[in-house]
Amino acid sequence: MKCEIMTIGTELLLGLINDSNAPYIARKLAEIGIISSKKSSAIDDVDVISEQIKTAVKQNDILIITGGLGSTHDDLTREALAKALSKELVFQPKIAASIEQKVKCLERPVSGLIQKQAYLPEGSEPIMPAIGTAPGIRFERNRKAIFALPGVFSEMKLMLEEEVIPFLKNRLPKKRKIVLIRAIKTAGEGELLIEERIKEIIDKYSNPSISILPYPGEVHLQIVAEGYQNETKALVARVEGELGESLGNLVYGYDEDTLEKVAGDLLKKHELKISLVESCTGGMLSNRMTNTPGSSAYFWGGVVAYSNEIKRKLIGVSGQDLLKHGAVSAQVALAMAEGGRHLMQTDVSLSVTGIAGPTGETEGKPVGLVFIGLAWREGSFCERFQFFGTREEIKTKASQAALNLLRLFLLDTFEKTGSEVS
Amino acid sequence: MKCEIMTIGTELLLGLINDSNAPYIARKLAEIGIISSKKSSAIDDVDVISEQIKTAVKQNDILIITGGLGSTHDDLTREALAKALSKELVFQPKIAASIEQKVKCLERPVSGLIQKQAYLPEGSEPIMPAIGTAPGIRFERNRKAIFALPGVFSEMKLMLEEEVIPFLKNRLPKKRKIVLIRAIKTAGEGELLIEERIKEIIDKYSNPSISILPYPGEVHLQIVAEGYQNETKALVARVEGELGESLGNLVYGYDEDTLEKVAGDLLKKHELKISLVESCTGGMLSNRMTNTPGSSAYFWGGVVAYSNEIKRKLIGVSGQDLLKHGAVSAQVALAMAEGGRHLMQTDVSLSVTGIAGPTGETEGKPVGLVFIGLAWREGSFCERFQFFGTREEIKTKASQAALNLLRLFLLDTFEKTGSEVS
Repeated sequence: MKCEIMTIGTELLLGLINDSNAPYIARKLAEIGIISSKKSSAIDDVDVISEQIKTAVKQNDILIITGGLGSTHDDLTREALAKALSKELVFQPKIAASIEQKVKCLERPVSGLIQKQAYLPEGSEPIMPAIGTAPGIRFERNRKAIFALPGVFSEMKLMLEEEVIPFLKNRLPKKRKIVLIRAIKTAGEGELLIEERIKEIIDKYSNPSISILPYPGEVHLQIVAEGYQNETKALVARVEGELGESLGNLVYGYDEDTLEKVAGDLLKKHELKISLVESCTGGMLSNRMTNTPGSSAYFWGGVVAYSNEIKRKLIGVSGQDLLKHGAVSAQVALAMAEGGRHLMQTDVSLSVTGIAGPTGETEGKPVGLVFIGLAWREGSFCERFQFFGTREEIKTKASQAALNLLRLFLLDTFEKTGSEVS
Repeated sequence: MKCEIMTIGTELLLGLINDSNAPYIARKLAEIGIISSKKSSAIDDVDVISEQIKTAVKQNDILIITGGLGSTHDDLTREALAKALSKELVFQPKIAASIEQKVKCLERPVSGLIQKQAYLPEGSEPIMPAIGTAPGIRFERNRKAIFALPGVFSEMKLMLEEEVIPFLKNRLPKKRKIVLIRAIKTAGEGELLIEERIKEIIDKYSNPSISILPYPGEVHLQIVAEGYQNETKALVARVEGELGESLGNLVYGYDEDTLEKVAGDLLKKHELKISLVESCTGGMLSNRMTNTPGSSAYFWGGVVAYSNEIKRKLIGVSGQDLLKHGAVSAQVALAMAEGGRHLMQTDVSLSVTGIAGPTGETEGKPVGLVFIGLAWREGSFCERFQFFGTREEIKTKASQAALNLLRLFLLDTFEKTGSEVS
């Protein structure tokens, strides 16, 4: 089954915005066995888009278009699709009603939206949006299928997963080759040491292949297997097992897992409340912690103690410690964690103090120096880190290290796993 | 001058990671007049990459490669480039010394890095990295130039801007056509209302073109002009003036500006200290505020008052208000701002309380309902918002609205601009 992914938007071609849609669609298609998809782009021009649609439909069985379904003058996918198919745009009362209901609470004019988004090429089926107002479009002719999805990633993603992929899966033969992708996520070591540790496993296998993807503060291992469904599952499971054994507690999760989700799950499981006291991460740690739905079950609150006055007056760090050791010191990190635990009355408190840069370094304290403290009922401890990168990278790496320190503390203290690797 | 941008990495082709490099490079090239660049990708295989490099060099004057310069087994750009050019990889003591110095403070083995990254194809010039350890590569032959840059965006960006673009600019004729891109950034209205307001201006011009790009909580207008340097400047300036007049205070900034930077600059200019009290944004607002270098001049600190206990005991919100009106209410938003201002002793305090979802809605209080409060020496006020989207989108939109409310308050109160549009 041949497929083309077409992204619409002058901005994409000029490099003014990034395209997250085409890679995501390519991956989801690969997972059901539609492997090498062609990718193309078109500028916001009805004639250009409609010509490109005609060519793509000739050469492919499936065409997935994203973008150009919004409500401004340069959203032209509906018109271009109608033109390419030689169909009229017809009014769809069902869509109009849904848009009206959605924007009611916005107390804003709805006419512009309806005039654009409630019209679809004759003979096409709307894909009703769960979020946003723009409906997607499905059109079928001569066993070929065209999908037009919104350009907004979250809206596109929902329609792709709930409508397009199930529809295509139904059309594919039951027994077919697919690509199975599994991510193993590690934290605590850089890519070089991870590679040294798993080199033998990497060299042993060609299918699945194993790639090492470094991110700020974590390293992912991407296992990619090709073959029939059951084959790939077994192939991935074996490699996953070997990698897990060799990496031990460095592995924090899989696929969609995040460090904040994994650490949060451990807090929830052991019914622990946490508070955070941040200086150089400036709220990033709290922000990440609260990205997990339901985090209010364990995240009690945080203080962004950016100025020394807040550290002193609100958290209770002693003025003497601040003077003698400086705000970026093990003593102050410990005092922040202990003070935060006392102030917010939680089981655990985690603190971060450091120099995010680009300025602020003093003698013996370079940009990227970070201390992370943790206090709980039996005491407190602190670790020192040296990070490199831009201001945002240092903030990210510090928040990663703090979450990983929390994860390892919770595992060691409350789960007594025997699998830690020395 | 013909140019190809080649991204290296199996993950890119399979859609496992997004490519931010090629769009950024395309934009920077367009800005100096190298307009339609070809884009290609190659998997991590020495033969495949080297064949693609050979073809690209035949067809183009410039080849810019990104990725594959790291230190793991699937970083193969150096080897592939050497093969394509029929050159040996030779040891560069200067690079080895620089890597050694950089990783000294990491207290980690340096040999793996040096073994990979200190070898360059004979006759090529290293581009020394300002951040990271991977050097870039420049190779010239027969008036053609090849650049290999790291795949890490921040490392690639620095080398592109400081080495590649100046090098290419020198080669181009002084008088040439370029693309001038200018972004006008607005906050406070959706894309539909923005478009209604500037429709006449959009219809009046074809060069420059004006596109409307919606983002969570803000709308950008992208002005794209083609022509000779001075022409494009004048074209953009005229359209920019007209748009600015029609949009008034909806415009918060230009190009690289962010709401947090603009609001922060106003605080700094008027020597005001701010504190933040966040509930549903969970630290995102503080995190954004501290992304601006030097924000410690005006950002004193913040409390993430996620639980009602923290709101009550730490911020001083009355238990009666919480019971009677609920945590998501105008009363509590006001009490949070006032309490935060008192607790942290700042000139201004900004508060956010709302329902980020996906669960947590109660009767009359849907997901996305958010109250934003502001307290200062002369009193306090509060605004009510209803946002739509995923949990992260609602958090983002709430933090955008809070920063914009702060910006407008500062403009109205301390700048007395006469340009506000009714």
